[in-house]
Amino acid sequence: MKVIRTVNEMQQYMRKRKQQGDTVGFVPTMGYLHEGHLSLMDYAKEQSDFVVTSIFVNPLQFGPNEDFDQYPRDFERDEQLAREHGTDLLFYPSIEEMYPKNDGVMLKVHARTDVLCGEKRPGHFDGVVTVLTKLFHIIQPDRAFFGLKDAQQVAIVDDLIHSYFFPIELIGCPTVREEDGLAKSSRNVNLSESEREEAPKLYQLLLHAKEQAVNGADPKVVEGDLLKGLKEVRYGHVDYVQILSYPDLEPIKTFHQKTIIALAYKFENVRLIDNIIVDEQH
Amino acid sequence: MKVIRTVNEMQQYMRKRKQQGDTVGFVPTMGYLHEGHLSLMDYAKEQSDFVVTSIFVNPLQFGPNEDFDQYPRDFERDEQLAREHGTDLLFYPSIEEMYPKNDGVMLKVHARTDVLCGEKRPGHFDGVVTVLTKLFHIIQPDRAFFGLKDAQQVAIVDDLIHSYFFPIELIGCPTVREEDGLAKSSRNVNLSESEREEAPKLYQLLLHAKEQAVNGADPKVVEGDLLKGLKEVRYGHVDYVQILSYPDLEPIKTFHQKTIIALAYKFENVRLIDNIIVDEQH
Repeated sequence: MKVIRTVNEMQQYMRKRKQQGDTVGFVPTMGYLHEGHLSLMDYAKEQSDFVVTSIFVNPLQFGPNEDFDQYPRDFERDEQLAREHGTDLLFYPSIEEMYPKNDGVMLKVHARTDVLCGEKRPGHFDGVVTVLTKLFHIIQPDRAFFGLKDAQQVAIVDDLIHSYFFPIELIGCPTVREEDGLAKSSRNVNLSESEREEAPKLYQLLLHAKEQAVNGADPKVVEGDLLKGLKEVRYGHVDYVQILSYPDLEPIKTFHQKTIIALAYKFENVRLIDNIIVDEQH
Repeated sequence: MKVIRTVNEMQQYMRKRKQQGDTVGFVPTMGYLHEGHLSLMDYAKEQSDFVVTSIFVNPLQFGPNEDFDQYPRDFERDEQLAREHGTDLLFYPSIEEMYPKNDGVMLKVHARTDVLCGEKRPGHFDGVVTVLTKLFHIIQPDRAFFGLKDAQQVAIVDDLIHSYFFPIELIGCPTVREEDGLAKSSRNVNLSESEREEAPKLYQLLLHAKEQAVNGADPKVVEGDLLKGLKEVRYGHVDYVQILSYPDLEPIKTFHQKTIIALAYKFENVRLIDNIIVDEQH
């Protein structure tokens, strides 16, 4: 596995690869890889001749009071894991490489940002689409692999790709979970022991909500029950519970369309998100 | 020469071309081609295996009181001229193809917009970078050719390309002029006969300003003289006269750096722009 740290070298290398006719799969990450990321690499490997993984903790997508400094980092471990999971090239740029000066042109997300994490993290998705636009141009993948745990991100990146005609196929991959159901996240290491014991309840509550949805319940009732259940989780507080159409993220009155049931819960040092997507019910 | 009108067909076609190893030169235009555009095609042909010209009058870069409806159009003539000047593929999409829905992610230009045409045309350059980002993704050129008559546009597109690492080289090409010095423009056809007779004075005044600059005059004096001369042109009024560093478009105190001397003049139905770039003086 090759490691490249500069934009220039990366673009030159990828140009050669593309000229050889290789299809390129791309897994963008912020590092501290867990099984969620590794499963994205596995999917990428299945569907591509050449897999590029990027590791870049993007300062632009963290708010001033968020955990940019606390965000866990371990490059040596990441390097080994990426190699073991079929990554052919690891792109690991510095902040100066990705943001050499203030960008005179800025990307701003206007749709789908006043719900879910967008509401609580102003500017977050502007940072996400900015860094992805740069990474897409540097790497020029045929397919980009994203985890559906960040379902709002997937919806927004899908809109970015389609609106601007990036010649890239977005592949949304299922959330990978611990045996007890907790969604894998780099941030899980920052949970205390007792918080870690409570955390699986988030997914259990989502599963219960999905069952209600499938049985034709009113979305308002499902949302209310989910909120009530979440309030009983200990050591933290509810950030949001929302039920919306997917991927448009609009309010719904029934479950007669593809729907996302999503929550965010704040423990002392870690904010966790999780969701379930419910397919159209007739 | 092939003509393609849909984004899908264009992306499929260009993918094949790139796989064959052809280098692609791209000339984006709003049609009603004149010798300025044709010279861009000639430059593109010299430097590329395959030349794509686009014709698209981009509504997003016109303000509500600007000349979108009046903007001249003549596809049959354009098609013939493009063919004669080495264009291999003409991309001629509809508005619905380029803007199938409201973009949820928007591009906004923050630097270099409070001077020259940016000041008078709020949102204009947002529209320019939006349509170019789409066209760059659709066509995937190796080189894109722009006329230096729109020098502010060249500076902003250069920033766009570098900030977002588009794998594209921008080539700025010299302004093409009528024999009497008037810069070629699609809008020139909308000049009245008497306006047309006055219009060459714009370039004569720029040439005089350049001579002053080269001889070490104070930029303020040069600007004042240029404004005075421009006020003596008949049938219209001065829109702006500005002398700035290039490509950063910052105010200057001496001519000790690359500098643009630029003007805009409004006749009854046509607003004309022109500029001269003066290289560093020591």
